Amino acid sequence: MRLYSMPSSGNSYKIRLLLALTGRRVEVIDCEYGSPALAEAKLAGALPYGKVPVLSLRDGTQLAESNAILWYLGEGSNFMPDSPVVRAQMLGWMFWEQYNHEPVIAVRQALLNYPHRAADATPARLAELLERGHTVLEVMERQLAVSDWLAGSEISLADICLYAYTHTAGTRGGYAMDRFPGISAWADRMASMPGYKGLHG
Amino acid sequence: MRLYSMPSSGNSYKIRLLLALTGRRVEVIDCEYGSPALAEAKLAGALPYGKVPVLSLRDGTQLAESNAILWYLGEGSNFMPDSPVVRAQMLGWMFWEQYNHEPVIAVRQALLNYPHRAADATPARLAELLERGHTVLEVMERQLAVSDWLAGSEISLADICLYAYTHTAGTRGGYAMDRFPGISAWADRMASMPGYKGLHG
Repeated sequence: MRLYSMPSSGNSYKIRLLLALTGRRVEVIDCEYGSPALAEAKLAGALPYGKVPVLSLRDGTQLAESNAILWYLGEGSNFMPDSPVVRAQMLGWMFWEQYNHEPVIAVRQALLNYPHRAADATPARLAELLERGHTVLEVMERQLAVSDWLAGSEISLADICLYAYTHTAGTRGGYAMDRFPGISAWADRMASMPGYKGLHG
Repeated sequence: MRLYSMPSSGNSYKIRLLLALTGRRVEVIDCEYGSPALAEAKLAGALPYGKVPVLSLRDGTQLAESNAILWYLGEGSNFMPDSPVVRAQMLGWMFWEQYNHEPVIAVRQALLNYPHRAADATPARLAELLERGHTVLEVMERQLAVSDWLAGSEISLADICLYAYTHTAGTRGGYAMDRFPGISAWADRMASMPGYKGLHG
């Protein structure tokens, strides 16, 4: 297996974090934004939708969508709940992440940190994303104020999924994380998991 | 089990369609936009995030997120692929739906058909959603030009998921569906499945 991964991207980091936590090694091709490696991967047809991450299987199958790759690599691991209800709750958080969280929390971080996105980083857009992001984070906080993990009583793929863009929401996105003590404690629990690696770890 | 469902909403229709295709009956509470039933459900705490659909289980667990509910009801059915790779491809389409498809194809339909959204239906916004939507539909067309179903060789939850807002994209959304013969043939295959029910069926 080969993982095409953007070092600075939370969607790619999710996969790298799961690999680290499960002690599984796959070949990782770093495709940073604007890099020759990304251009080469696109040219070689390795990224069917032009986006990373992509997991390339031994038979040539290309799996896209970060959360679907998490699922694939997570089957049979400790991060996949046994209970059908908890599996559905876990997937609920992961769909919520793509619809509600990523388009706000990740986008504000991209606008502030990627030079090629700076033109879109107008004060009005940044203010809107700040306000909406605090509402999004409040939804996570409500859960994490009463439970250690997002779905069920154990860590699951939902936590890895949501951690990726949440743990840098303050430092890279300017969100006021001191309002969310439940999220902060959860992020500390994540970072103390055996095998944990940070975004650039 | 009890399903809180909005009759006019594709996200709710997904669940009703899966129930129809599997011949499974659950209590359905119609919560149309602006209806007393929706207000009552919110007041009673039946919609934890204020949105439908919600599947309420016998033990009181509330499952949110349409695609997670699809997963829960689809486990063990013919709409769940046996192969881990095909399951991941199916989930890939479902995450893609929430991130790329729904925010464009469903939103244009909402702007054109819900009176309370009319204020947002500016010519510029409608034009942008039209162009982006055709690009989104082209991604589905590429797959459906070469295979009967989105993931693997059999119908799966991905088809039910994507059908919901795609089959009305022309009539309710103004998309030029004659450009997409693969999608049209796929939609015909869906509508001829045993047990099929339409949006208002």
